[in-house]
Amino acid sequence: MTSIFKHLSDVHLDAINAYLNAAITHHYTDARVTLEAAIRHSLLAPGKRVRPLLCIASQNLFSPGEVLKIMPVAAALEMIHTYSLIHDDLPAMDNDDFRRGLPTCHKAFDEATAILAGDALNTLAFQHMAQELPAHFPADLCLQSINYLAKAAGEPGMVGGQILDIYGSSSQDNIHALETLHLCKTGALIRASIVLPSILNKAGIRSIAKCEYFGDTIGLLFQVIDDILDVSSDKATLGKTPNKDIEQNKLTYVSLLGLEGAKQKAQSLHDEALDLLASFEADTDVLADFVSYLFKRKA
Amino acid sequence: MTSIFKHLSDVHLDAINAYLNAAITHHYTDARVTLEAAIRHSLLAPGKRVRPLLCIASQNLFSPGEVLKIMPVAAALEMIHTYSLIHDDLPAMDNDDFRRGLPTCHKAFDEATAILAGDALNTLAFQHMAQELPAHFPADLCLQSINYLAKAAGEPGMVGGQILDIYGSSSQDNIHALETLHLCKTGALIRASIVLPSILNKAGIRSIAKCEYFGDTIGLLFQVIDDILDVSSDKATLGKTPNKDIEQNKLTYVSLLGLEGAKQKAQSLHDEALDLLASFEADTDVLADFVSYLFKRKA
Repeated sequence: MTSIFKHLSDVHLDAINAYLNAAITHHYTDARVTLEAAIRHSLLAPGKRVRPLLCIASQNLFSPGEVLKIMPVAAALEMIHTYSLIHDDLPAMDNDDFRRGLPTCHKAFDEATAILAGDALNTLAFQHMAQELPAHFPADLCLQSINYLAKAAGEPGMVGGQILDIYGSSSQDNIHALETLHLCKTGALIRASIVLPSILNKAGIRSIAKCEYFGDTIGLLFQVIDDILDVSSDKATLGKTPNKDIEQNKLTYVSLLGLEGAKQKAQSLHDEALDLLASFEADTDVLADFVSYLFKRKA
Repeated sequence: MTSIFKHLSDVHLDAINAYLNAAITHHYTDARVTLEAAIRHSLLAPGKRVRPLLCIASQNLFSPGEVLKIMPVAAALEMIHTYSLIHDDLPAMDNDDFRRGLPTCHKAFDEATAILAGDALNTLAFQHMAQELPAHFPADLCLQSINYLAKAAGEPGMVGGQILDIYGSSSQDNIHALETLHLCKTGALIRASIVLPSILNKAGIRSIAKCEYFGDTIGLLFQVIDDILDVSSDKATLGKTPNKDIEQNKLTYVSLLGLEGAKQKAQSLHDEALDLLASFEADTDVLADFVSYLFKRKA
């Protein structure tokens, strides 16, 4: 990460983790301690907390300094993201053994516990927002936020994107299919991270729409760079096996546009994202820094 | 079902199914049609819709005739119930091939699709309530309802009960463990079916508490009868293999109290439920009829 966004992370990471920890801590004396342990294992594993940090950065655009108010949303975003990782890693899905440097949930516990831990986190995200947000924001806006996050997480968003990823596309497909896939699978939750503070702070219809477009833009920028790194980086730098997309005949920006075309696409998304930020009447340095980080990352 | 509750079912079943159908219908032209088909397969399979009907019966206590207003809650309850069936049936959980007379979701589709269909329904329940309820009820009460349903569905309720069922008890355990298990696993959602209309119609703290206690009572009554039928019925009547609980060394009312003790427990829960209903200042005939149905059922 570059310096200003890293500073945001340094300032807030411990608070986010402490908040998440508090949100999942019960005092069971029966078998539910296992479920809680599985949830804790996955939710508190070392993650970058990109979505909560984006949410805090967006909150600072609309209500500078009022970070605590948006923490229920930041936490809900991480809960949804984590549940999707737990279920994605299951044998019937990606069948992964490691995640965030630790054994995946079904490896550390078992499949049934992992399925239930994911289910519990999905539900907890909405329970937590419904319980904690009304102290800070008008009730109608809290409901709008729950609706927005649920659409982003569910069939119209992330879950729909996972189906598209499994069954929906091949390297012969077109740019529309590619962008639909990514705007759903990873983009919807990244977009929600930026948009939810704008809804809750009554930013106005034009600002909310701008946040949506900016969120989509950085979601796609993340993905183009991912596709470029897959063909141009090595395993030591990348931390995972390169050329995986080509081997799996996946639809990527590189398969569609070629490496040079993909690089041009990344540059234009980067420029567009910065232009959008420049038109906000607020201090957007942190988000601009995040855009640069996405653009320049090597892994 | 006995006659008055069956009448409620006859009147509302088609409307519930049509409402559920509308709530899950999109117009995708890509692989998401498969996800929608899997959701439709499970959600619209022939079910008794007990939770939506209980919710409608409860709504009629507080706002007689205003059934349409509560349909988003009735639908959300069935979505949560169905997602839990889909995930429960997975190979890593109960590994069932048939449900509601049809192949289970992972048999009709595949495991990955079934996991995602369950996830989508879990999320959709809250999205639907957040989107549809505010037209009919005050926003703060809508938030309270989402919070209440999410607690009933999540770790403190249904999902916690599933963990207790898998890992938490043996036939040597005590009545406290048994009742905690059932009040979580099936009771929490049945209780929510009764309680949510009381919250949304501002029934008052005493009425809401009475609904909670009544909901718990019928949830346990359902379970005692289930345990009694397991040892006293035959396969033809029961529609499933009897004596399964004993073979699996499960903690049941019969294993704890003996058959006669369990029958006395059922009688006392039945009487208590009817006494509670008699103290409502409303027409409780439908719910009283449902209590009799639970008590007298043979399968």
